[in-house]
Amino acid sequence: MCQSLITPTLLYKPSFHPPSSPPPPPQPPSSFATMSILSLSLTFLLLFHGSCLALRPVQQTQNQCQIQRINALEPNERVEAEAGYTEFFDSSEQQFQCAGVEVIRHHIQPQGLMLPSYINTPLMVYIRQGRGYYGVMMTGCPEMFQSSQQMEERGSFQDRHQKIRHFQPGDVIVIPAGDPHWIYNDGQDEIIAVVMLDSTNAANQLDQFHRRFFLAGNPKQSGQETPEEGSGNIFRGFDLQMLSEVFNVDQETASKLQSPDDTRGHIVMVDRGLQVVRPPIRMQHQQHGGPANGVEEAVCSAKLTANINDASRPDFYNPEAGWTVHLNSFKLPILQMMQLSAERGVLYRNAVMSPYWIMNAHEIIHVTSGSMRMQIVNNEGQSVFDDVIQEWQVVVVPQNFAVMKQAGQEGCRWISFRTNDNAIMSTLAGRTSAIKAMPMSVIMNAYQMSPEQAWRLKNNRMETMMFNPRSRY
Amino acid sequence: MCQSLITPTLLYKPSFHPPSSPPPPPQPPSSFATMSILSLSLTFLLLFHGSCLALRPVQQTQNQCQIQRINALEPNERVEAEAGYTEFFDSSEQQFQCAGVEVIRHHIQPQGLMLPSYINTPLMVYIRQGRGYYGVMMTGCPEMFQSSQQMEERGSFQDRHQKIRHFQPGDVIVIPAGDPHWIYNDGQDEIIAVVMLDSTNAANQLDQFHRRFFLAGNPKQSGQETPEEGSGNIFRGFDLQMLSEVFNVDQETASKLQSPDDTRGHIVMVDRGLQVVRPPIRMQHQQHGGPANGVEEAVCSAKLTANINDASRPDFYNPEAGWTVHLNSFKLPILQMMQLSAERGVLYRNAVMSPYWIMNAHEIIHVTSGSMRMQIVNNEGQSVFDDVIQEWQVVVVPQNFAVMKQAGQEGCRWISFRTNDNAIMSTLAGRTSAIKAMPMSVIMNAYQMSPEQAWRLKNNRMETMMFNPRSRY
Amino acid sequence: MCQSLITPTLLYKPSFHPPSSPPPPPQPPSSFATMSILSLSLTFLLLFHGSCLALRPVQQTQNQCQIQRINALEPNERVEAEAGYTEFFDSSEQQFQCAGVEVIRHHIQPQGLMLPSYINTPLMVYIRQGRGYYGVMMTGCPEMFQSSQQMEERGSFQDRHQKIRHFQPGDVIVIPAGDPHWIYNDGQDEIIAVVMLDSTNAANQLDQFHRRFFLAGNPKQSGQETPEEGSGNIFRGFDLQMLSEVFNVDQETASKLQSPDDTRGHIVMVDRGLQVVRPPIRMQHQQHGGPANGVEEAVCSAKLTANINDASRPDFYNPEAGWTVHLNSFKLPILQMMQLSAERGVLYRNAVMSPYWIMNAHEIIHVTSGSMRMQIVNNEGQSVFDDVIQEWQVVVVPQNFAVMKQAGQEGCRWISFRTNDNAIMSTLAGRTSAIKAMPMSVIMNAYQMSPEQAWRLKNNRMETMMFNPRSRY
Repeated sequence: MCQSLITPTLLYKPSFHPPSSPPPPPQPPSSFATMSILSLSLTFLLLFHGSCLALRPVQQTQNQCQIQRINALEPNERVEAEAGYTEFFDSSEQQFQCAGVEVIRHHIQPQGLMLPSYINTPLMVYIRQGRGYYGVMMTGCPEMFQSSQQMEERGSFQDRHQKIRHFQPGDVIVIPAGDPHWIYNDGQDEIIAVVMLDSTNAANQLDQFHRRFFLAGNPKQSGQETPEEGSGNIFRGFDLQMLSEVFNVDQETASKLQSPDDTRGHIVMVDRGLQVVRPPIRMQHQQHGGPANGVEEAVCSAKLTANINDASRPDFYNPEAGWTVHLNSFKLPILQMMQLSAERGVLYRNAVMSPYWIMNAHEIIHVTSGSMRMQIVNNEGQSVFDDVIQEWQVVVVPQNFAVMKQAGQEGCRWISFRTNDNAIMSTLAGRTSAIKAMPMSVIMNAYQMSPEQAWRLKNNRMETMMFNPRSRY
Repeated sequence: MCQSLITPTLLYKPSFHPPSSPPPPPQPPSSFATMSILSLSLTFLLLFHGSCLALRPVQQTQNQCQIQRINALEPNERVEAEAGYTEFFDSSEQQFQCAGVEVIRHHIQPQGLMLPSYINTPLMVYIRQGRGYYGVMMTGCPEMFQSSQQMEERGSFQDRHQKIRHFQPGDVIVIPAGDPHWIYNDGQDEIIAVVMLDSTNAANQLDQFHRRFFLAGNPKQSGQETPEEGSGNIFRGFDLQMLSEVFNVDQETASKLQSPDDTRGHIVMVDRGLQVVRPPIRMQHQQHGGPANGVEEAVCSAKLTANINDASRPDFYNPEAGWTVHLNSFKLPILQMMQLSAERGVLYRNAVMSPYWIMNAHEIIHVTSGSMRMQIVNNEGQSVFDDVIQEWQVVVVPQNFAVMKQAGQEGCRWISFRTNDNAIMSTLAGRTSAIKAMPMSVIMNAYQMSPEQAWRLKNNRMETMMFNPRSRY
Repeated sequence: MCQSLITPTLLYKPSFHPPSSPPPPPQPPSSFATMSILSLSLTFLLLFHGSCLALRPVQQTQNQCQIQRINALEPNERVEAEAGYTEFFDSSEQQFQCAGVEVIRHHIQPQGLMLPSYINTPLMVYIRQGRGYYGVMMTGCPEMFQSSQQMEERGSFQDRHQKIRHFQPGDVIVIPAGDPHWIYNDGQDEIIAVVMLDSTNAANQLDQFHRRFFLAGNPKQSGQETPEEGSGNIFRGFDLQMLSEVFNVDQETASKLQSPDDTRGHIVMVDRGLQVVRPPIRMQHQQHGGPANGVEEAVCSAKLTANINDASRPDFYNPEAGWTVHLNSFKLPILQMMQLSAERGVLYRNAVMSPYWIMNAHEIIHVTSGSMRMQIVNNEGQSVFDDVIQEWQVVVVPQNFAVMKQAGQEGCRWISFRTNDNAIMSTLAGRTSAIKAMPMSVIMNAYQMSPEQAWRLKNNRMETMMFNPRSRY
């Protein structure tokens, strides 16, 4: 019946205005009718009409990046658990919608275990703080870690399980969509992990928002007041008797899979520490430095972690201004599958980053220490962001928008996630910039400059990427 | 409160009409109320309601898989023709919208010819029953089948045409988007063909629903009462005189291309059987067993058919529980282009399939005999489907949703189509499961189990995939 | 009129609530107004408002190609500048929405320079008329063009810049998304360039419409009355002091980057002609004939131009009917990255093109001289376009829609852009057609024809693609 009020003509010929031509302002009705009966019938008409609207979507889809204003964001929601908590940045923020990503932050206490779960999007995790290890259960891969004599303290039970991977501050960890994983804090400090979830990734055929499928516990979901509200791990939805049969265990054990009364949340405390089979840390960390080779791309032994915090191996370095390390699919081959990359950036006190735009990706910037002033400019030459981004905050720079950064008094460090495995940055000032690539006569005519001004504009700044404003050429 | 005015029903069960079924004309309000105050309050109600609507759009587009309830589906529409009929599953069902696919079923009588047509989506066809052959006309490919002396019964007319391909029960046939094809039943039984149309495939740049372009006949479209309603084959839209000129034939012949008075529908009876040039069946079927090589990927000779019903060559086999055959791009290389795959599954009486999720694809399950109980669980641990799926029914399992299956008294056979050319299944119980891959101490802490319980959970079920609940390890 | 009731705020700033964060509840109306006249006006407001919403939602997203009627289009907007103007075809036209592309046309006067800009979509440019050269500034590529003694007329300033590329009538130029470029007219005639912008290209992660980011000037945007309305180049949004610092130039020079008072628009006059470093034209044009090799695919030296107007090297040629030249990724490798191709077509007087459909692409046709009658048929056998398309007009043929063309008295020339780097055309009449590939008995039964009629239908027209209706076989 709802449908019945939309004529075919209306359905198939929507008139539509592109971004740059805003519709004229509404005209007041030219005459005020006088019969309220007409009003009523119209209201009815509209009522049904209106219901239809509820069913049929659109706007955001067509102009997801019609951004007039970007704000530095902080988390707006927190889900607590026994041994930590997770903070959520508001996924409905236009800048996240534009980039098609979400950002969350895990805080895991020492001896805290984040319960195993899988997600419909690929994850890119930056370890801001803390040490620990994680396990990713990959379908079809063998259990290569095996307990020996030293670990037989649990009576006669021998254990065998898939690979365990250590992490340390500055590591970037990537987890493919649909792979279950758990995280454990075996260090002294709280783990703080910043996670970008790429909801619009090709690997995600489900929703435009991430969904976490827990394999254990009785976790609260974001937006949920009490754990009793019907949430739970995926075993909860299965018949207890059938679970008991498929696992061939008694019903008591099967009911523990469902954990209906577990109130610990998604991060639980491991009382005497987790006992797993794993090599000494030193052996593992050696791998970070090794070059990627073909074998590492094999799924079961794929490298999922790379350190991005090593100032001794920067990709760009200016001793007067700062440095960057890039993590792309050349360094971590699995990123090619994920179409994601990351950058670690450091600007020293008051140093400036050349105005730039990223040609083929959105950029999600999270400041990890200090602060910087950022200006973000859209295609109409308007500054949509001109503010200081502080430690802990997140800002999204849409593809092609122009950006300039200047560090504050304490310098600035950030991690930036990018929605392309080989994001390309184009700068406006400096030796490798677009301005430098233009013929002088184009500059003279485009900007109405004298030859001397044009020459200086091209050649006065011979550094690239990051400058110290005090250092003049 | 805005939310409170939109019922979950409205949000999650949008009724939606596919292109070919225009909505019925609007009905005038049946009565005119008289109190303007009512009008006013309704207006206000609506005003806020309307505002919400303006803001919400989105949901369906962004969350096509916000599924609270899945039902086993049967066709809800049938289009009859002279020598058979086609049944349509309701494309507006949320589960199809989520997976971005459609499902139809052809029934073609012996000596029935389905008229040539092409479609804007790739097709994956499962031959449930019947034998026959089909032709796919591929642009630029030579006519390699040529008539010889034996076939000169039609006077002196020699014929030459493109490859003809036989099929038998259990065959899966794939047809690329845009390739015209016809199907003929040369057997004794009705052909029953289950067809999945992948509307969201990258090959489809047109609509989100499939469109069939007929090259002949005057077929009814789905949702259409009478063949006179303006439907027809594509020649119908061309000028008769021009058709006559381009084919260089008389107008009578040209008008037969348009077939305005043909009432036979899309499947026509071939009176004395179709006479085509083709090799003996045995020669053709030999190819089924051969391994795929590079040459087969060449477009003109591409293998489009593979049998998936051969219990003697299963990919998984447990004599106590059942077997499966997978069809992916390693077996049928053209599937890589289509990003689709299929599974033939058989569960013996009361046997159980390990709970699993598919990491990278939606799964469209069609039961071909017997029945099974299925439970499908979402990320909140809720069972969105807990029912018996019967022969002929279809159920969609969204990506990452967890599933468990138990066959009924008569066992169960099904075909499952998957929206990835190499769909990866992750199981929860058994030797190769995610639970088995986890360290015991993670299990103990996650599920609050004793070491013994954790050990049993990991090791009590050493089979994989399919179990017989009576067989205990 | 509907549009006029949607305020920009509603259109461009939809606040959006994801499932997990319900919108704040609306406040109950604080007072119930007493005048029904108010009710009425609100109702009216809402009615139109509501109708608009009804129109905007969904359709485009779900059924972007629900086209009942296609019209030959002409530009509906023009943005003037000092040395030329740009015309815009209405992007909201359903046929452009369906194909996900936009079309514009630049007119650049002799000695006109189109200011440097970059766009979030790949461009495909057809040079209808005029000669000139353009520069594309590619990130990370060296400045290989270097001034010598002859060019030192500008005092002692030496210049060095990236590659400059010449173009002539009939050239197709492709520009990757995000690459800044400028165009200069160094010939005697106005340059007329038809540009297709592929908004739905994978390279564009931003909006569904193109956005041009100017690096210089103070250009008007489409839909904008005065240049003061806040538009401007991207430097305009940056802080003047910071610009001065990063370029290490005085504030006067920096302020010229922002060009707030520049009234010349996006195409400026270069008084005494542009002086750039470039090789003689002859040397450059030699490359057009050369075969593509691997080296050309390297980014910095990628070939971006190919001539498509050369009747001496056609891909199809019928001396009685016409010829075509195709430009696909085999000829211009960068097209593979862009997933685009083009066709130059010429039909002689009254000649006919075989009815065809493109299997895997939309086709955007622009007539460059003469006129032709086109019929476009949808899947219901309805003619959605049956009209003459004149010089300068544009028509979009959706994927799979069937088309027939007949040139007028003066013949017809066109350029067609296609949304696939290897668009495949399937014809209905002629030696390589789908009809020819079908067995005679299928034709006889499908069209209820006699053997003789079927034989003639298959064999009476042995040409392919283009025919002269007078020439009978």
